Amino acid sequence: MTQPSPARQSAAVASSDFIEADRAEVDSALYTLLPPESEPPSVIHRAMRYSVFAGGKRIRPILCIESARIFSRPPRGVLPVACALEFIHTYSLIHDDLPALDNDDLRRGRPTNHKVFGEAMAILAGDALLTRAFEVLASAELSAERRAALVREVATAAGTVGGMVGGQVADLEAGGKPIDASMLEYIHRSKTAALIRASVVSGAIAGGAQSEDVERLRRFGENIGLAFQVVDDILDVEESSATLGKTAGKDASQQKATYPALYGLDKSRETARSFLERAHEALAPFAARAQRLHAFADYLVARRT
Amino acid sequence: MTQPSPARQSAAVASSDFIEADRAEVDSALYTLLPPESEPPSVIHRAMRYSVFAGGKRIRPILCIESARIFSRPPRGVLPVACALEFIHTYSLIHDDLPALDNDDLRRGRPTNHKVFGEAMAILAGDALLTRAFEVLASAELSAERRAALVREVATAAGTVGGMVGGQVADLEAGGKPIDASMLEYIHRSKTAALIRASVVSGAIAGGAQSEDVERLRRFGENIGLAFQVVDDILDVEESSATLGKTAGKDASQQKATYPALYGLDKSRETARSFLERAHEALAPFAARAQRLHAFADYLVARRT
Repeated sequence: MTQPSPARQSAAVASSDFIEADRAEVDSALYTLLPPESEPPSVIHRAMRYSVFAGGKRIRPILCIESARIFSRPPRGVLPVACALEFIHTYSLIHDDLPALDNDDLRRGRPTNHKVFGEAMAILAGDALLTRAFEVLASAELSAERRAALVREVATAAGTVGGMVGGQVADLEAGGKPIDASMLEYIHRSKTAALIRASVVSGAIAGGAQSEDVERLRRFGENIGLAFQVVDDILDVEESSATLGKTAGKDASQQKATYPALYGLDKSRETARSFLERAHEALAPFAARAQRLHAFADYLVARRT
Repeated sequence: MTQPSPARQSAAVASSDFIEADRAEVDSALYTLLPPESEPPSVIHRAMRYSVFAGGKRIRPILCIESARIFSRPPRGVLPVACALEFIHTYSLIHDDLPALDNDDLRRGRPTNHKVFGEAMAILAGDALLTRAFEVLASAELSAERRAALVREVATAAGTVGGMVGGQVADLEAGGKPIDASMLEYIHRSKTAALIRASVVSGAIAGGAQSEDVERLRRFGENIGLAFQVVDDILDVEESSATLGKTAGKDASQQKATYPALYGLDKSRETARSFLERAHEALAPFAARAQRLHAFADYLVARRT
């Protein structure tokens, strides 16, 4: 492992106050970008808002905003793009929690969408958030060229070929079968890393990055997405139900493909650190401009390695 | 009612061979635009293709293609846009048929998606078709300006505020309650007419129409969409289960809000004809260039008035 670069060193001591500030800005924009509860038919807007404001950490929007900031664009212009990514993430959680899929009653310590609004409304609320995401991307105050590129990037990341839905399908198919290393990587890469990567890339596009820089950030996004998912797997093994707010150990009980199940905890922690290191390396050309992204990457993985 | 214009008269005698030709072209493009069944994860691509190729009449794609043709654009450039509309229509049918929603076992005489692939895969196949639709719109060989406008137009029509999901929610909410005229119109306008209108408008945008002509076609689309839904309600009352390939009379048994239930069959037929007439009128400025759209409008409503 190489010595940390100067940018890394300053990142290590950087304040992470910006995370809370970004989060507040994102929450406020999410609130504005969703139809009000008073808008008919009211129940679907209540259902959408219930899950969007159910305590999410806004990881994807923050990655988007901080990726854009490298190119000095004022975050305000990027905010709707950041919110669209959170809408897609939220839709995927609502549908994943449904009885026909993971059948989860709790998410972040609160009843899941279908437990509150019923299955029909949960299905439609997910559909509506996915749809609204693309409407928001296509309406952002950016050039038409960038708006079209954003829709394409995000739709591909959310789709079936190497994207989020493809990963979810592979995960369902793998359930209860012996775990295979290449399938595990496929699932992680598509189910989680693809949308995280698209969040970083979207920030770069919205911020006006040239294609070479977009590709650098794509590499960062891919690696931080993989690190994030490995850490998530580790957390699931370690944490108690009370701390996580969902039924922990559930992956194991459902025989889901996870890193710890295949490699054990120590090797999994090492893998997460290695993905993190590659993420940092991808940011090297941006030097101090990427300070916040370095810090946020550390923050994401520091949860448990 | 005014005298039919010359364009109308020629439409009345026009061959409708173009409908079959359009349909064949759309089917071929749909085939190409979906990931192959061999692409992993295979099962989701099989599920997507199963419903897209389950005997749909391709009404929305044909409206899109023929709307574009008014502006003389070769249909080939418009085909992906037309297909995106069919993907969205198909996703809505898959989700509507789910046990938590309409709980239908048959659609066009064949088992519904969840009866063949299971509920989890049906939910994900719907999600994937919706996502793919926006990916295709954003990737069409058109200017970025038009691609972004198309995504926006279609997303709004598929959304919760006056769009398809909003109509579906209102329809669910209205079930079993006394039927109210303004709610019935809201449901028809949003659940069915919005996407049909967007199909016509998308064709105009893709074909390069100026905004005045786009608005004329929007009026055509809105009225033909409403006529279509009233006819659909009439058909449901009249036809037998065998002919329609779904459980006829189901709307009545579920106490769904329909025109015949509120106004009776005679008044409903009159309403459909009146919407049709307004649709024809909106096309008047295009004279003979709209001949096929006139003919297709008649074809759609002739099913039963």
